Amino acid sequence: QMPRGNLETIHHRALVLAQLRKWLDDLKFRDAFECMRKLRINLNLIYDHNPSVFLGNVETFLKQIDSTNYINLFLTELKEEDTTKTMYPCPMSAACQSASGSGGGGKKKVDTVCDALRSSMETLDPQKFCLCILTSHVKKTTPELEVALQKVRELRVNPPTAKNAASAEEALKYLLFLVNVNELYEHSLGTYDFDLVLMVAEKSQKDPKEYLPFLNMLKTLEPNYQRYTIDKHLKRYKKALHHLSKCGEEHFTEALNLVKDQRLYIEAMQLYPSDSPQHKVLSVAYAEHLMEQQQAEQAGLLLWRCGEMACALQAFVSCTSWRHALAVATHIPLPPEQLAQLARDLAEKLLEVRRHTEAALLLEQYAKDCEEAISALIEGCAWEEALRLIYLYSRQDITETHLKPALLEVHSNQVAFLESQKALFTRHKNRLAVVREQKAKARLELIDEDGPDCADAELYSEASSVLTGSRIGSKYSQSNSRISTRSSKNRRKAEGKKHSLKEGSPFEDIALLHALIQIIHVVDKMREEIHSLLKALVLFQFDMLASNLQAHYSELLQLMEKGIPEIWNEGLQQGQTLITGPNSTANSIMASFQQPRPSRVHQQDAEILIPPKMRQSVKWKLCILK
Amino acid sequence: QMPRGNLETIHHRALVLAQLRKWLDDLKFRDAFECMRKLRINLNLIYDHNPSVFLGNVETFLKQIDSTNYINLFLTELKEEDTTKTMYPCPMSAACQSASGSGGGGKKKVDTVCDALRSSMETLDPQKFCLCILTSHVKKTTPELEVALQKVRELRVNPPTAKNAASAEEALKYLLFLVNVNELYEHSLGTYDFDLVLMVAEKSQKDPKEYLPFLNMLKTLEPNYQRYTIDKHLKRYKKALHHLSKCGEEHFTEALNLVKDQRLYIEAMQLYPSDSPQHKVLSVAYAEHLMEQQQAEQAGLLLWRCGEMACALQAFVSCTSWRHALAVATHIPLPPEQLAQLARDLAEKLLEVRRHTEAALLLEQYAKDCEEAISALIEGCAWEEALRLIYLYSRQDITETHLKPALLEVHSNQVAFLESQKALFTRHKNRLAVVREQKAKARLELIDEDGPDCADAELYSEASSVLTGSRIGSKYSQSNSRISTRSSKNRRKAEGKKHSLKEGSPFEDIALLHALIQIIHVVDKMREEIHSLLKALVLFQFDMLASNLQAHYSELLQLMEKGIPEIWNEGLQQGQTLITGPNSTANSIMASFQQPRPSRVHQQDAEILIPPKMRQSVKWKLCILK
Repeated sequence: QMPRGNLETIHHRALVLAQLRKWLDDLKFRDAFECMRKLRINLNLIYDHNPSVFLGNVETFLKQIDSTNYINLFLTELKEEDTTKTMYPCPMSAACQSASGSGGGGKKKVDTVCDALRSSMETLDPQKFCLCILTSHVKKTTPELEVALQKVRELRVNPPTAKNAASAEEALKYLLFLVNVNELYEHSLGTYDFDLVLMVAEKSQKDPKEYLPFLNMLKTLEPNYQRYTIDKHLKRYKKALHHLSKCGEEHFTEALNLVKDQRLYIEAMQLYPSDSPQHKVLSVAYAEHLMEQQQAEQAGLLLWRCGEMACALQAFVSCTSWRHALAVATHIPLPPEQLAQLARDLAEKLLEVRRHTEAALLLEQYAKDCEEAISALIEGCAWEEALRLIYLYSRQDITETHLKPALLEVHSNQVAFLESQKALFTRHKNRLAVVREQKAKARLELIDEDGPDCADAELYSEASSVLTGSRIGSKYSQSNSRISTRSSKNRRKAEGKKHSLKEGSPFEDIALLHALIQIIHVVDKMREEIHSLLKALVLFQFDMLASNLQAHYSELLQLMEKGIPEIWNEGLQQGQTLITGPNSTANSIMASFQQPRPSRVHQQDAEILIPPKMRQSVKWKLCILK
Repeated sequence: QMPRGNLETIHHRALVLAQLRKWLDDLKFRDAFECMRKLRINLNLIYDHNPSVFLGNVETFLKQIDSTNYINLFLTELKEEDTTKTMYPCPMSAACQSASGSGGGGKKKVDTVCDALRSSMETLDPQKFCLCILTSHVKKTTPELEVALQKVRELRVNPPTAKNAASAEEALKYLLFLVNVNELYEHSLGTYDFDLVLMVAEKSQKDPKEYLPFLNMLKTLEPNYQRYTIDKHLKRYKKALHHLSKCGEEHFTEALNLVKDQRLYIEAMQLYPSDSPQHKVLSVAYAEHLMEQQQAEQAGLLLWRCGEMACALQAFVSCTSWRHALAVATHIPLPPEQLAQLARDLAEKLLEVRRHTEAALLLEQYAKDCEEAISALIEGCAWEEALRLIYLYSRQDITETHLKPALLEVHSNQVAFLESQKALFTRHKNRLAVVREQKAKARLELIDEDGPDCADAELYSEASSVLTGSRIGSKYSQSNSRISTRSSKNRRKAEGKKHSLKEGSPFEDIALLHALIQIIHVVDKMREEIHSLLKALVLFQFDMLASNLQAHYSELLQLMEKGIPEIWNEGLQQGQTLITGPNSTANSIMASFQQPRPSRVHQQDAEILIPPKMRQSVKWKLCILK
């Protein structure tokens, strides 16, 4: 080798790479390989230069190289890294880019190359390439050590016939050179092949006094239990469970403990037929675990299907899965008094979460208590259903004592609520107009002055950008990095806390829009509720109250419908007039263009730019009311 | 008067107006009035110049003018028009604008001035200003002719004491000068005051042979019936009904006919006590009318509350208001067989509109047919409810014959549906990427060339503007109005028809986004349905099927969750790179800024810019499945 200077090396490499590319394109792998080896160029380039060409000509590659050592060298040097992108970027990037990345197909590069080479070698001459094949197994992302060991064992059983072929002895030595001996020992155990284990153990530095007793003990065990013991030793619990399940009933307790320890419930249940007693025990164990995990309903399903009714009922009750609970209860069957009590307990839970109609069904049909059922329905404003039960059980007295007073109370509550929503809507809407005007003014002033108070400008523009789609601050942030970082810090801080409705808060307009959307949503959602209340009021001759409520609600809906285009168009128009209006300056126009849409930081707020849609298709008005 | 030249007139008027404004500001109404009268300047200016000052100094105005004729002249010349904006715009517009519009307060200008003047005149000297007061009544937006007539009648009863005061005779003459005689006659009839009627009739050109018999006939009638007859003659039906309702039961048929003819049901029902037989007859009549108007439920409510049970039942049944129908049916009460048949009929209707759970309740509880009820629940995939009934009625046989087969069928349908949605989602998503790339390319090319094919550029930019927030076409439309009109026509046409998914359609990207949102929405909505199906499958040991379905659904949801940021951010980023990227030209940058947000025409499409939200809070997965 000649002594090399820096300059020469640099030039040399560029020329060499060009030459290598040519060779690789011409499929002259041998020339390329020799040269790369000599000049210590990473061998990955052979594949990376053009993966699909390489994969299509693996046989040519092997035939040209034709050396176990060289192939091993290539295999051991394989890395996931794409050397055409990192070490040896191609000068004509466009051409190379399209070529690379076409091979593989989701598989990792190393695995792809190993598999392709091995498959070719096994076709060409498995005996000759024996060691290379072992290397290709070991080099994979998850090394296939057991397969490699199995191949070594095969060599021992059927010694190779060819002259230069490696013996089992040589192959094992080679493997030990590639892989840590302890790892190989563990994996040899995993093949359950004691010959293999001994073969590896002998080659290792291990003390026979350590491993022989263990191996001898294992040899005395029943095959499945033996495998289970090995699997457990290797912490392969799923396999261990699989083998243990074949060891008969006397080992089931051991299996159950393993399942509980390792939470292998699902796997275990698949190993025993679903009508077996073991399956049932496992189901119960799993259900217990699920109960602890707050998955009572699924626990209930497992318990029910394996016939553990009482436990299933408990599970369903605990998660208020009332339909299942009652199905199980009648399946048991529970005596009538207990069933009624169960229904009452469940109904109470349902009432707590305002599921009145379901509670009523329980009370009516299982607790046989129509009075409580009707009372639940009235509490839940399910007027029609309450009436149905009142007449079904001929309890018209309840109409006077409960239904009518409830109607009147709900009516006055609703009217009061509508009043409050109307006041809030109007206040927010008016305040929004004021805030927008102030901001527009402040923005124009700041732009005209090109003032020193940039941080403030940023704040104003930031908030307004969401509403008008224009932003000024970025102009400053581009020219002055100190201010930019400071203001972006402010921005992050401001977004961390929820936008405040407090007067004068920098994002007050956004907070107001959020609040307005919320009010519109709440009020619009009341259509069905109001409709049902109106019908009930009319039925009991409360026409005046009904008219009054209808007028209130109708007025509020109209107010909102009229308000929506005002609230959600003003912002747009403001933005546009700002850009083209007579008060705009060259600076303001450029500033408006700086950021033509809300920045990505504001994605979360983007929805407030869309006017909310009201469900005008839901007809709630009664035409029989004035 | 001097002969006036054009030039002189123009100068003259401007000077005069300046002088008038000065006078009006100084409250020199008389000077202003005289001058305006002489130079034929519209008298409205007296008020319009500064409404609040005028309204604050009405008394000064009246005292200065001090002439019935002049005041009448002013009143008759009043118009809604604001002369400071139309005829006599103020040169210093800003100052005047702030002054005008402050008076009134929602009321119309003419009414405001009339009321203010009248109120002042009645305080100052009602006898002297008598005619002016009449004018102020007649000039109102809705002329108060009856009030004016009443005032004339008062003059006749109590002749004025003052010297110059107008007599009843004179006042009437003056009124006839202001108002059409027939109109005045009708209104005099409307006062139910025959003296007044005769007084007007005598002054009119009417033939006494025509009106006297009618008046004499009226005089013979009972007062309420007389008023009803007059009201009806004047087509004042609500008043007519009001008077007729006081005429006693013998006229009720006439009232009913009037109600039906004029659809005055609501008004009529308020005139009779709700427990009266008339009220009931009216309710029934109204209900019939409501049935014709497809408002059967409200008809039912009216019929039920007035005790017409059979009709109410019919009404409720016809609109499938089943809870009310059953309440009425048990209220009647219907014999058991009829009730069962009614329940079956209603259940059938409910099943047609896929309201299975409600149908099942009817079948179970009223038709006492648990088998049909369970079958309805199974058809509606209400697995838990079906199980509840199966165990309640100990019909476990149905589990094998119906429930399990249904579960299997629904499972395979759902899997197939999920497959199809997945395929569609992937296809649309990929196609969208292709379309976006094509458009970005086409747009850049068109901009770079600044090509002759402007209409096409408009199309590309139009569609893309929604997605990238940038628009190019408007640049052309500003500089070339011919193309602008043509393209805006195209635009309207293109928006008329729904955006097409057909490949190559100009708004294909928008159509794709709509379709993608639709798919995401449909699939996301299935969470509850899938959860319930999974539970039922597990209960019946179909663990493999359940796992399979869970895997399918989970995969699809993940695909969508991963796809959303790709679909809804690419557009934004595209827009931004276009603006600042190395491929952009000065032209393209300006064009991108031209319209920084989707134009208002695209408001309807704005929602597709917001990535749809998936309901990740709805937990549907079973942890007991692998």
